[in-house]
Amino acid sequence: MTKEKLIIVKIGGHVIDDKVALKKFLQQFSEIKANKLLVHGGGKLASELANKLNIPVVMHEGKRITDKETLDITTMVYAGLINKTIVAQLQSLSCNAIGLCGTDANCIKANKRPVSEIDYGFVGDINADSINTKFISGLLKQKITPVFSAITHDGKNNLLNTNADTIASYISVAMSHIYDVQLVYCFEKNGVLKNVNDQRSLISKINEEQYQVLKEEGIIHSGMIPKLDNAFKALYQGVNSIHIGNSNYLLELLKTQQHAGTILYN
Amino acid sequence: MTKEKLIIVKIGGHVIDDKVALKKFLQQFSEIKANKLLVHGGGKLASELANKLNIPVVMHEGKRITDKETLDITTMVYAGLINKTIVAQLQSLSCNAIGLCGTDANCIKANKRPVSEIDYGFVGDINADSINTKFISGLLKQKITPVFSAITHDGKNNLLNTNADTIASYISVAMSHIYDVQLVYCFEKNGVLKNVNDQRSLISKINEEQYQVLKEEGIIHSGMIPKLDNAFKALYQGVNSIHIGNSNYLLELLKTQQHAGTILYN
Repeated sequence: MTKEKLIIVKIGGHVIDDKVALKKFLQQFSEIKANKLLVHGGGKLASELANKLNIPVVMHEGKRITDKETLDITTMVYAGLINKTIVAQLQSLSCNAIGLCGTDANCIKANKRPVSEIDYGFVGDINADSINTKFISGLLKQKITPVFSAITHDGKNNLLNTNADTIASYISVAMSHIYDVQLVYCFEKNGVLKNVNDQRSLISKINEEQYQVLKEEGIIHSGMIPKLDNAFKALYQGVNSIHIGNSNYLLELLKTQQHAGTILYN
Repeated sequence: MTKEKLIIVKIGGHVIDDKVALKKFLQQFSEIKANKLLVHGGGKLASELANKLNIPVVMHEGKRITDKETLDITTMVYAGLINKTIVAQLQSLSCNAIGLCGTDANCIKANKRPVSEIDYGFVGDINADSINTKFISGLLKQKITPVFSAITHDGKNNLLNTNADTIASYISVAMSHIYDVQLVYCFEKNGVLKNVNDQRSLISKINEEQYQVLKEEGIIHSGMIPKLDNAFKALYQGVNSIHIGNSNYLLELLKTQQHAGTILYN
């Protein structure tokens, strides 16, 4: 039996900070006719709120240390303000969206990261088998579009801050058992770039072998590494296609099957 | 055909500010075997956060004036922190809850209150016909417990701050077309009191005639008036029974059919 198509889109934090870019993106997202699901990052708002409240923002190797106060702020901003703002905007565009985080209907369970040298606090590593594909499929069958914020839970009364790229990747893999899943990472850049400061230096196709070479050469670095690690993992575990590109036009171009952004291939 | 039972519980703000009382309440709520739905108020947290951020809290005749900054705070606190904290706690008690506000799956639409002498800002008056009973019933059939925060939307990209007692009442009336609805208002008092400072001065039964007399005499006043206005309206519009009482034991006593709190009758 042919599987129905499901387009899973991750929208990055910088786009959320930019109201014009977010509006443009949501307009295009709302026009997708296939089954669709959105995962959103956090943006600067949580750090701004922490600063205003004099709660120190502590990072270790680019990762946020999430103490209880920081968890409360991320829950407010990600699962509250950003999530509901996006859902209300989609509703006004006639897209029947529902805002969710991992604890809602037990959609995504995670384990609190064990304390080793570093205690990351309330940070969750997703339990791959826990994705509630039955509930999510039920929403899609009702033509309801799930919108996930990057908060999960452990089932033991702990909410957990979780990387949004990783959530998009795990949901995609789990849903690929039921749907033909296309995973799309949208952000402020044109795709994977050879020179992060030059939008024209786009790598239009990449496989894992090429990725490893570019990573060793230091051409691909920083935040792009976990994004691509997640993405290739998803590609090998059943996700049909993965694109990474600019939120301003990637969905528009994909709609007409035009080549756009960076395509990951096996 | 006999309708299935649905218990709709509103939990008030003061209980949410008290972690011990909230835990006790949620334990009892999670043990309800019938279909159930929770509506929660906001508590002091939103005002506390507004104070910390130097956003003035402006009230008019006991009602909060909701400018855009205040709306953002209530969305963060009600639909984010409080809602997800309650859902995570219910999940840990093996109650499969889902946190929702009115914009999610277009569950509750409201109209932004028209500006007359006072501009209440982003405050919503619920559209009674808009309650998405089909979606809510679908959740209940999946044994999922909806948990509503007091935020609605107008379908035109505005989130709206909405009274939680009113939300509980409107959902109860709408769901009473499908279910045999029991509406329970839980808060920090034992029920409707003759003397607000004396928990023993409980009025154990009240009908609307008696209510009007007690209101004219000034015995029932302040926040109890909109609560009872809402409640009697619901009683006349199809809700089967309405109880008002103490969050510490009302659900426990109702479970064993014991008389508890104040019962409203026709």
